[in-house]
Amino acid sequence: MDRELFTPNRLFCPGPTPSPWHVKQAALDSDIYHRSKEFEAMVSECSTMLKPLFGTTTQPVILTSSGTGSLEAVVVNLTNSGDSVIVVVGGVFGGRWRKINEAFENKVTVVQVEYGLAPTAKQIEEAFNACPKPKAFFIQANETSTGARFDISTIAAQVRSLSPDTLMVVDAISSLGAHSLDMDKNGLDAVTAGSQKGFGVAPGLSFVALSNRSWKSLSSRSKFYFDLEKERKGQELGRTAWTPAVSLVQSLHASLTHITKIGVPQFAQHHERLAKACRAAVNALGLELFVEKNAVSNALTAIKVPANLDGSKILTTAKIRYGAIISGGQDELKGRIIRFSHLGFVSPFMLIEGLAALEFALADEGHRFNLGSGVTAAMQSLRSQL
Amino acid sequence: MDRELFTPNRLFCPGPTPSPWHVKQAALDSDIYHRSKEFEAMVSECSTMLKPLFGTTTQPVILTSSGTGSLEAVVVNLTNSGDSVIVVVGGVFGGRWRKINEAFENKVTVVQVEYGLAPTAKQIEEAFNACPKPKAFFIQANETSTGARFDISTIAAQVRSLSPDTLMVVDAISSLGAHSLDMDKNGLDAVTAGSQKGFGVAPGLSFVALSNRSWKSLSSRSKFYFDLEKERKGQELGRTAWTPAVSLVQSLHASLTHITKIGVPQFAQHHERLAKACRAAVNALGLELFVEKNAVSNALTAIKVPANLDGSKILTTAKIRYGAIISGGQDELKGRIIRFSHLGFVSPFMLIEGLAALEFALADEGHRFNLGSGVTAAMQSLRSQL
Repeated sequence: MDRELFTPNRLFCPGPTPSPWHVKQAALDSDIYHRSKEFEAMVSECSTMLKPLFGTTTQPVILTSSGTGSLEAVVVNLTNSGDSVIVVVGGVFGGRWRKINEAFENKVTVVQVEYGLAPTAKQIEEAFNACPKPKAFFIQANETSTGARFDISTIAAQVRSLSPDTLMVVDAISSLGAHSLDMDKNGLDAVTAGSQKGFGVAPGLSFVALSNRSWKSLSSRSKFYFDLEKERKGQELGRTAWTPAVSLVQSLHASLTHITKIGVPQFAQHHERLAKACRAAVNALGLELFVEKNAVSNALTAIKVPANLDGSKILTTAKIRYGAIISGGQDELKGRIIRFSHLGFVSPFMLIEGLAALEFALADEGHRFNLGSGVTAAMQSLRSQL
Repeated sequence: MDRELFTPNRLFCPGPTPSPWHVKQAALDSDIYHRSKEFEAMVSECSTMLKPLFGTTTQPVILTSSGTGSLEAVVVNLTNSGDSVIVVVGGVFGGRWRKINEAFENKVTVVQVEYGLAPTAKQIEEAFNACPKPKAFFIQANETSTGARFDISTIAAQVRSLSPDTLMVVDAISSLGAHSLDMDKNGLDAVTAGSQKGFGVAPGLSFVALSNRSWKSLSSRSKFYFDLEKERKGQELGRTAWTPAVSLVQSLHASLTHITKIGVPQFAQHHERLAKACRAAVNALGLELFVEKNAVSNALTAIKVPANLDGSKILTTAKIRYGAIISGGQDELKGRIIRFSHLGFVSPFMLIEGLAALEFALADEGHRFNLGSGVTAAMQSLRSQL
């Protein structure tokens, strides 16, 4: 078939996620001056609509940076050089927490988690034995690089019981929207998110919510662009400290208005449905999940590449022949896993489209299965859940 | 007249500048994965097209941040804590260089310049007497807050003769595109720029070009998000270190393609024409320039508000009644000046439109002049220059 006949760049990678037309279009609404009442109102409304996604009553701040900027902002604003911290490393993004903490001269104790697994209570306890009262505990809600979801509510309770003063810091960049989060109830002290994930907005904005006790114990480090206190004070009035990515804020406002209309719990439930349907497809295709059962994610499904197949070739075929961008493994997982994302504004039928493309690519690269079996299983799963 | 009949949000503020339709629309081209060959090629082409704007053969790096992020990046990458630096402060943005340097614990010697004037050779010499061999000298090419343009080529030569090892650092955020810059020839060691100024792209991207000697003497400071060395190495292959603001890069590519087609010197010349025409209008309206003759800018024209008028009211009227966003003074200049921008993709007839709106607002607020005299003078000036 002629590749030109397939829609190119259908995103089934865990970020950037597909941006709905009305979200993209909002960025074109008009040129807008960021120091105007109308834009300040837009920023304020975004903050208000973000709160239920974070599960907090404190005000999340909006930064013009990619997600990594928000991670740096948290490290720089909550720790002082030389602080002891514990970092859960279960993939590339746990590794990023580690690298940022090391770059800013914190003493890092690592909870090394086998890729695809979740950290155990014992592993966490051992880390606190080695590092009894760390300033902060860093973890992902969803480790994007492996597709493993960590049980933040249980882990936060354990951290709190082991060391009540330790700040519980959660990178929820690829989780927010796909999984419900209750920051206040679970006593999370910092949560980060990014525009290009659950929000279906182009990359370039990130979000940080801090607990009241975090706001009261900010660091004395050198900071300027990522000075969260300055951002918070300004954003209470809708004024960002520096010129923000205006067009992305316009898109964000459209996205949040849409999510609010759907309902935050319903949006998470939608992700859960898609994830179930995707896992049903994987099973029907005779493939295995990479992530253990208790850590499967609603945001993306990680699939083991069978030993007789070349994972990179499958994904190249999906992209080049069929226009579907599906992710592979990073670093040591390169070629070994397929990461199929259903994060953000992926509709049930977009999921079907992506699975069909994956089936075509699997068939081309020599996987033996009945064509259509994955899609059929997903359709049956979706229909039974609706 | 009914305000709804005027096009709202016509931007005559010095950033964000008006974004041409094809530049905005480029962001909608398709969802795009940032780790794809097509996106990497787009980043590489942007870098290549940026070079003649900076006047350099080294590779500018693209950051996902507002302009302030690029200023911090330069301070963090080129200085170590405790370094002595000289900062020219002739307005809010000189003040920002100062604040960032202070936030990162540099020892700052200030060249205080009266707002609207340019620093004199004597003032610069005195600063070097007080601080003989500073690590770096920080200045704006164009002080956006006052509309004063500084003569970078002359000042760079003076700095080089006073202290050859001092790094010459130029914030060209509101200058690039509007004024020709020859980074290599003038021996500039760092130049920064931002997407929402001369490029007519929405805010959210900034650019940093460093000289070869800057690249060879990077700081040992803690850094992560703004690690320029990491960005440079990746961007040689079109790979940004972190997820970039993809849609803004798409717009940037469209903008740079357009500027390249126009020609970099021709684009600066266009700005010069508009600025001349704008000054002719100011004169015809019986108003005075705020900036002294040797420091007038091609990017924006700063106008003194006559003592009998309320500057803030004029601008509110221009905005609310006539949809034209024209800037006023910041901080101590609030109410005292009008900053009318002709930066980026402002066409001759957009200039006329903006001046007409300014005339309406001036007339409403009690300024005495012949309606149309400013626009007529601008038209005559433009026509004589074409």
